[in-house]
Amino acid sequence: MRVDVAPTPAFIPQPFPQGVRAVVIDVVRAMTSVAWALASGCDGVCPVGNEENARERARQSGAILGGERKGLPPEGFDLGNSPSSYDRETVGGRLVVLTTSNGTAAVESCLESTQVFGAAFANVEATARRLAEEKDGDILIVCAGSAGEIAIDDLAVAGSLMGSLALLAAAEPEDGARTAAAVFDHWKNDLPGLLKRSLSGRKVAGVGLESDLADCVVTDSHPFPIVLDEEGVFRRGD
Amino acid sequence: MRVDVAPTPAFIPQPFPQGVRAVVIDVVRAMTSVAWALASGCDGVCPVGNEENARERARQSGAILGGERKGLPPEGFDLGNSPSSYDRETVGGRLVVLTTSNGTAAVESCLESTQVFGAAFANVEATARRLAEEKDGDILIVCAGSAGEIAIDDLAVAGSLMGSLALLAAAEPEDGARTAAAVFDHWKNDLPGLLKRSLSGRKVAGVGLESDLADCVVTDSHPFPIVLDEEGVFRRGD
Repeated sequence: MRVDVAPTPAFIPQPFPQGVRAVVIDVVRAMTSVAWALASGCDGVCPVGNEENARERARQSGAILGGERKGLPPEGFDLGNSPSSYDRETVGGRLVVLTTSNGTAAVESCLESTQVFGAAFANVEATARRLAEEKDGDILIVCAGSAGEIAIDDLAVAGSLMGSLALLAAAEPEDGARTAAAVFDHWKNDLPGLLKRSLSGRKVAGVGLESDLADCVVTDSHPFPIVLDEEGVFRRGD
Repeated sequence: MRVDVAPTPAFIPQPFPQGVRAVVIDVVRAMTSVAWALASGCDGVCPVGNEENARERARQSGAILGGERKGLPPEGFDLGNSPSSYDRETVGGRLVVLTTSNGTAAVESCLESTQVFGAAFANVEATARRLAEEKDGDILIVCAGSAGEIAIDDLAVAGSLMGSLALLAAAEPEDGARTAAAVFDHWKNDLPGLLKRSLSGRKVAGVGLESDLADCVVTDSHPFPIVLDEEGVFRRGD
């Protein structure tokens, strides 16, 4: 099993390599919010890159509409992108349509893979165990990044995943995966410090939501794989 | 002073940011060969991305023609891309025209910067000292990469440079620079091991030139800045 990391979606090889599983990472905050929503018993989370498409999809399906542009919920949205806002009272039993600046578009870049997983610190170990169990196929870890730039927090999750896959499945890292592994190793004892310094973290703090970062940094707070089903909806994979 | 790292030339912002100095890194092997050639007393090294343009330029100027495609010198070239082949007997007093798969094209991506430096492990500390002396302007470190992919050896040099600039000039890292710094920190005690495992290193070993790697890995073996002059020729900056 070979593992590579695309530091941003622009690094995804074109055409998408055959037989490869994709893991989309957006730790601040989309994939963390997906994990919280699924843990709160929502029916599923449908990631949509385009805002208008997201509004339409939510209207048609009667779903909760959540997400952000420039860090804040667009007018008329039910929820923003704060993980803790996806609580049982609000999303339990409901479908959630989520549109964010980076993470949901990254998912759309991976639809030609054999399977799409979503990961953040919240479920990184559970994701690694699932990927290691099903040894068929190489893995491409796609970091959502931030408006086309590298987001070091996403690379850190990718590196943590790479380290686990090396131990669980003797996975071989390509240079991008080795880079991510070095980032995680360097910061693993101060992940809150990394998020605080990161571009993503500074953007979130800039709109007054710095307290969200503490919810994004706990490893395996939500220990289940997140898997995109055939209808394009993220479901719990446990 | 802010410092960012483009992990490959595709990450250079368009248009090139104003007032920014560029440092092009290609450790295996173009910039290491430039350092060796300049230390051997050549007149200068002219980097040319396109092979035919390089042949023409060398013919017009009576220069030594060196470089590689797929790791080996094209037919009719005087030299390949092995640093040790750029010795005093061969290149002393002569202009060298160099064309390589990644490094020389990366230089051409940076011509809108205020100044272009070339760096590898061979001159990384000397480069940092020069950049820190002239505090005017932010810095973009551009890793040549390997055919569009991340080359972790280039990132390691970028990280070493970033670490030195943080100490010498209180430079602030962006996420890309912080990523590079983590790579260097992780591998600094086994740079030969990093090169051996890297994509670039494996490609060089694949054409039977693994012994070149030992020449690429010695920090400040050639302790002078490499600066592109107004005629597009790399000269010693000391």
